[in-house]
Amino acid sequence: MSTVVVGSVALDTIKTDKKNVEEVLGGSASYFSYSSSFFTDTKMVAVVGNDFPKTHYDFLRAKNIDLEGLAEIKGKTFRWSGEYKDDMNTAITHETQLNVFEDFDPFIPESYKKCSVLFLANIDPQLQMMVLDEIEKPHFVACDTMNLWIDIKKKVLKSLIKKIDLLIVNDGEAKQLTACDSTIKAVYELLTMGPKFVVVKKGEHGVIVASNTDIAVYPAYPLQNVTDPTGAGDSFAGGMIGWIDKSGAYDFQSIKEGVLFGTVMASFAVEGFSLDGLTNLDKEDIMARYSRFCDIITPERV
Amino acid sequence: MSTVVVGSVALDTIKTDKKNVEEVLGGSASYFSYSSSFFTDTKMVAVVGNDFPKTHYDFLRAKNIDLEGLAEIKGKTFRWSGEYKDDMNTAITHETQLNVFEDFDPFIPESYKKCSVLFLANIDPQLQMMVLDEIEKPHFVACDTMNLWIDIKKKVLKSLIKKIDLLIVNDGEAKQLTACDSTIKAVYELLTMGPKFVVVKKGEHGVIVASNTDIAVYPAYPLQNVTDPTGAGDSFAGGMIGWIDKSGAYDFQSIKEGVLFGTVMASFAVEGFSLDGLTNLDKEDIMARYSRFCDIITPERV
Repeated sequence: MSTVVVGSVALDTIKTDKKNVEEVLGGSASYFSYSSSFFTDTKMVAVVGNDFPKTHYDFLRAKNIDLEGLAEIKGKTFRWSGEYKDDMNTAITHETQLNVFEDFDPFIPESYKKCSVLFLANIDPQLQMMVLDEIEKPHFVACDTMNLWIDIKKKVLKSLIKKIDLLIVNDGEAKQLTACDSTIKAVYELLTMGPKFVVVKKGEHGVIVASNTDIAVYPAYPLQNVTDPTGAGDSFAGGMIGWIDKSGAYDFQSIKEGVLFGTVMASFAVEGFSLDGLTNLDKEDIMARYSRFCDIITPERV
Repeated sequence: MSTVVVGSVALDTIKTDKKNVEEVLGGSASYFSYSSSFFTDTKMVAVVGNDFPKTHYDFLRAKNIDLEGLAEIKGKTFRWSGEYKDDMNTAITHETQLNVFEDFDPFIPESYKKCSVLFLANIDPQLQMMVLDEIEKPHFVACDTMNLWIDIKKKVLKSLIKKIDLLIVNDGEAKQLTACDSTIKAVYELLTMGPKFVVVKKGEHGVIVASNTDIAVYPAYPLQNVTDPTGAGDSFAGGMIGWIDKSGAYDFQSIKEGVLFGTVMASFAVEGFSLDGLTNLDKEDIMARYSRFCDIITPERV
């Protein structure tokens, strides 16, 4: 089994009330891969410039993340800079420099084409579609998106959504994509668009996962201190998808377990800047927090 | 066992996208009592004017709610009118006529003074304190409040909070009372103020319940259609406190069960205007939704 992710690799500059960091490793493919690598073999498709630091390659390779699909082309790596204020819930973007990411043309190595699971992180849905067409017969395909693509590429996005197993979006995107005022209504409306499963992320308020016959709702892991929310959603997706791939089951049960692992991985990720919160974890840390999380959210039957 | 609630009885005029209602039964004590009456003997302390419809007395008495402490005085009953738009999460108040509620002087009948549980719904904390002093030795005291009292009567409110077992507030009030940006931080800060237990309600996002040694977090019941959110918080409190009184245990276990019953009762309440969502319920309906809710939120252990 192996999971292929296509997404972005970035250098992030982040400001918070407590601390600032400059040009740290970021991007959806970085967070996703690092998080999923705790569960399954992970293969990355992305692009960086020739200014991308060697330490970051080493850092990703140390987790056995396959970087054959990480193209390095002449130019500057994608850069994002932003700020979080007060409640840490909303990122204020200061600057986005797409650089080499602007003309991203995903390269899929032969060795990637027999992967069991494919995760299409938030990139142009036309590129997501292209990658999906190149992978031979994945057992399971999941996809993320964002408000920009819902605004300007809704048609191709909807064609893509028809072809996937699992759509992962946040509550704002779910409402935007369905024109529903209520998140729960939006979940069921998204299911009519074709995917077998829908996961709607609500940040600090947790997650809803549903199929046409089942629904589960979980809160987020209750953290008192959030250092940097950047990458929470992609760390969540990495934990979830990595677990689903490892389990080899693509049913609601496995997806629910995946959602819980995703929640745990996101909770670690936001405890540090960049990938610091995930760096020194081992499987025992993950299982201990998973178990603690179950204790916190398990209802009392009467 | 019996639960005494002190709070408001109102006539509400409510506008939503789908339907409007005029001068329907509302107020914290009404919602609380009706909800708690499914679990325990409930005794109301409140005030109405001599225009209060006989049908409402009959409606409350039909649930065996003790109205000896419901004073009727010359004048008009408290009236509130408001509107919900789009996502149904925020009430826009059009008019508040305090009327006889402006000079509310709670009357505690002798037969109320040996109650096992006391719920101080959202009224002036000086009145809450007065009522607390009059009740002999309740096993368990819970209290709600609102932004107004945090603004203008913080000192007496804090003295009151020191004396109670359980503080129930929403996330905005929790942050305001503690000057914390994070809801989870606010929960632990509230615990330092004296109560044994804190419940923070997050509306459609569920609830956090904590003591100094335990924490539990639950989502809300996932409803596709919300008719009228008025009274959700008081129906929640009624279900929770009613269950705690019925259980006779005042420990974290019982409070967690109470939070789940509260969530179930609130979910029924918002399915209708006024108390319509609770009116035709029986114990089987409540237990069926409780069980269904447990199915939806129980995590998969691995």
